[in-house]
Amino acid sequence: MRPHGWSQMARRLVLAIVLQAVLCSAVLAGQAKYVFLFIGDGMSTPQINVVEAYKALLAGKTALPGIEMLNFTQFPAQGVTTTYSTESLITDSAAAATAVACGLKTYNAGVGVDPDGKAVPTIAEMAKKAGYKVGIVTTVSLDHATPAAFYAHAKSRKDYFEIGHQIPKSGFDYFAGGGFLDPEGKKAKGDGPKETVMDAISKAGYTIVRDRQGFEALKPGTKAVVISPRLQDASAMPYSIDMQPGDLTLADLTAKGIEVLDNPKGFFMMIESGKVDWACHANDAAAAIHDMLAFEKAIDKALQFAAKHPKDTLIIVTGDHETGGMSIGFAGTKYSTYLQHLMHQNVSHVAFNEIFNKWRQANPNGTFEQAAALVTAHFGLKVPTAEELADMAKAVEDKDYAKQIKGKYTLHLKEYELADLKAAFARSMQGGKIQEGTRDYLLYGEYEPFTVTLSHILNAKSGIGWTSYAHTGVPVITTAYGANANLFHGYYDNTGIFSKLQQSMGLSKAVASR
Amino acid sequence: MRPHGWSQMARRLVLAIVLQAVLCSAVLAGQAKYVFLFIGDGMSTPQINVVEAYKALLAGKTALPGIEMLNFTQFPAQGVTTTYSTESLITDSAAAATAVACGLKTYNAGVGVDPDGKAVPTIAEMAKKAGYKVGIVTTVSLDHATPAAFYAHAKSRKDYFEIGHQIPKSGFDYFAGGGFLDPEGKKAKGDGPKETVMDAISKAGYTIVRDRQGFEALKPGTKAVVISPRLQDASAMPYSIDMQPGDLTLADLTAKGIEVLDNPKGFFMMIESGKVDWACHANDAAAAIHDMLAFEKAIDKALQFAAKHPKDTLIIVTGDHETGGMSIGFAGTKYSTYLQHLMHQNVSHVAFNEIFNKWRQANPNGTFEQAAALVTAHFGLKVPTAEELADMAKAVEDKDYAKQIKGKYTLHLKEYELADLKAAFARSMQGGKIQEGTRDYLLYGEYEPFTVTLSHILNAKSGIGWTSYAHTGVPVITTAYGANANLFHGYYDNTGIFSKLQQSMGLSKAVASR
Repeated sequence: MRPHGWSQMARRLVLAIVLQAVLCSAVLAGQAKYVFLFIGDGMSTPQINVVEAYKALLAGKTALPGIEMLNFTQFPAQGVTTTYSTESLITDSAAAATAVACGLKTYNAGVGVDPDGKAVPTIAEMAKKAGYKVGIVTTVSLDHATPAAFYAHAKSRKDYFEIGHQIPKSGFDYFAGGGFLDPEGKKAKGDGPKETVMDAISKAGYTIVRDRQGFEALKPGTKAVVISPRLQDASAMPYSIDMQPGDLTLADLTAKGIEVLDNPKGFFMMIESGKVDWACHANDAAAAIHDMLAFEKAIDKALQFAAKHPKDTLIIVTGDHETGGMSIGFAGTKYSTYLQHLMHQNVSHVAFNEIFNKWRQANPNGTFEQAAALVTAHFGLKVPTAEELADMAKAVEDKDYAKQIKGKYTLHLKEYELADLKAAFARSMQGGKIQEGTRDYLLYGEYEPFTVTLSHILNAKSGIGWTSYAHTGVPVITTAYGANANLFHGYYDNTGIFSKLQQSMGLSKAVASR
Repeated sequence: MRPHGWSQMARRLVLAIVLQAVLCSAVLAGQAKYVFLFIGDGMSTPQINVVEAYKALLAGKTALPGIEMLNFTQFPAQGVTTTYSTESLITDSAAAATAVACGLKTYNAGVGVDPDGKAVPTIAEMAKKAGYKVGIVTTVSLDHATPAAFYAHAKSRKDYFEIGHQIPKSGFDYFAGGGFLDPEGKKAKGDGPKETVMDAISKAGYTIVRDRQGFEALKPGTKAVVISPRLQDASAMPYSIDMQPGDLTLADLTAKGIEVLDNPKGFFMMIESGKVDWACHANDAAAAIHDMLAFEKAIDKALQFAAKHPKDTLIIVTGDHETGGMSIGFAGTKYSTYLQHLMHQNVSHVAFNEIFNKWRQANPNGTFEQAAALVTAHFGLKVPTAEELADMAKAVEDKDYAKQIKGKYTLHLKEYELADLKAAFARSMQGGKIQEGTRDYLLYGEYEPFTVTLSHILNAKSGIGWTSYAHTGVPVITTAYGANANLFHGYYDNTGIFSKLQQSMGLSKAVASR
């Protein structure tokens, strides 16, 4: 046996190991110290790909189909994630967030509880106990199901007052987003806390910030609760499409979170884009797209941080479920897509509802013809004259004539679209609840008939179809970047995100049961 | 220096290498010698997940939501694949198959050609040149776009005669599926070949098999073209839901392919389930599900082979695009899904068309009431009496009453469903083409109004929604198992499947340009 020979062999072996370590570095990487969990509520492949196509348009690729990839679809790890709850193939956001936060399936509406309603530890609580600082960021109210499932435990997502009171109890370090849905306990049942949610938060030593100045002044290490200076529907931040100069964005809240939470022991931050879901519930593609573009900018902030801490940062981006049964394809547009039409929409369905409500109050006996100006101003759709309708009808019968006038009536309402919009306008002017089990429910869900029909028509002309006003059971995509990212490859259930996070962060089950 | 110490250290290092090799075995694996490329035409996440939910029902999980995973969603590698063509976000099957087969984007309708119509080498041709045997299997006609893009080059997918003649020219070893769409060149333009496709195939030394006996007698090494003994629509094999005892299945054709192609130099086999797409075009979920279950059985055959050749086998399963804008969610069913209703459908839309056509010929003045028996016999739907309709209307207005009679009218047509079906029946009895740009086109596409409306109603009651009669731009899922499988992780374009296959099989660019 020759010592020199062994020495050489050993060197070669060491070299081989190094090579393999490079090849599958993530498997061998250490603990993820800075962890970002981004949740696009209601976001699955249709939403992702439609935004990628829209980005191609924004980049000036108007003549070319194709996509401009989002930052997170470029992440090295991509997984397909199933989302069903214990009671339905179609989860709600509470059960989905609980699956991700706690690693177990529960019933729709359960927040951080098992199917028996018993509290279970969340990944955020485990991280906090293990020494990480923790941040919770959302575009919707802070007591909403998705953020709540990371810091609270409630038998029902509607226990907003009870949930809000768990913010100070959590001891987490940074909360930022919309406001609260029941901060004074007006809707709370039984013997709950006596003080308001805001008082409890103040008493626990949190700095409460409600304006941009205070937001900008927030210093690293301050425990803070940031409430967007401007709120829109249901105490949520405004839709990105409705943002005004000076409004705080999800990227602002994320960047500030990094600043506040950064410390040598690491942090865990959950950042939800909650209104992609709401927009998709309302079948409002334009609002969903703008909120997803804002979501991407928030993810950019995490990537900028990761560039400084490449070995220790893990960024996960997932959806909690798909919403609306969105598709990039509609019966009337066949193999074509015209996303550029969506650029004519300049307000969300919520902002348009406000505009329409004001108009309705000013014109209680207003006619469809009088309302037509709103249609053009906010959706770009044109109400055709009788002559134009006759010309369009001619083109339906005569293909050669159709080619001749191609592009002339792109945004004009077709005969049946006009009929649908007039019927919806009449239904809106009539008012009253729309009953489930009726055709009107299929047409309008629980939305303002006039508004949702405008969304449907503009979406149809753009080549976007929808099947529902609720969530769907279609799987979502989970993508990962950074330390231990490759754990997130594969086809797995949303409970798997919890266990993969646990593994990535070195959080043992012992911590979980503490 | 102590020899014994080095020896121990070396042993430890060897152990470490083995451990790492297990952890990331696919990275280090050799060339894939036996390659299966399964293409579910029209199959994306909605189709996959709906079948997984349906399998849970079949497994007796009637009371529980949840899924029974398909064999290929359990594969270790999962990728998300974009599918757009050079001219549209929504690809056709020709451009999609060309992207996968040749690694480049082309226009819709282009088969194995670049955007200028110039032939480009396919992965199957490259494999053949490198010494692999090659098989092409499909449930649709052998000259259809997807199979054609692997062995033929044509400016238009409709050049069926020209495409068929490229079967013998390819020199590939095994073709199996449906028949031909223009074997005698009746629709061919200009100066084409004079002889029939079948004559050319015979002359080239292929054994042509058209019956089960001949099929079973096929011996390893025989060059064969297998045509399903029973053909249904457009020279395709029957839908699985319409299969009769003795019909050849996709699994049969795959198993025989393995038997015929197996040789020490390896093989490449493309196996397409082509009618998932056709069923989804027609918004016929039941037919799509049954064809996907048959697809899974074909993949099982590859897995059985892989078990015997674990180091050398690579199995890829992908879709070429999504079809129909399918979703697991419908406006009327909200968060609930009732896939069990689909079990009442006992024929495909094509088989029902035949039944309805016969009925129509026998009853040229038949009424809707007379046709109602067909509705119940083949879709399980019940036409309500006037009393039942009134009772159902009461339940819409009165929620307590609705709870009281819950489940009584599950498969009864609702008032508006009845109105829709009657209108569709009348449209079918009227006959004539449905013009694009009309409301009828949205309702029926180019399908038999009565049949497609029955599919729509049964699907809606099951909680399945559709947005289109065409393909959509939603990405698909690519999964991989075996040698070099982990190359197929990630978010990539369908052209990436070609380059990953090329890499897996060690097929250099030099081979491509030979």
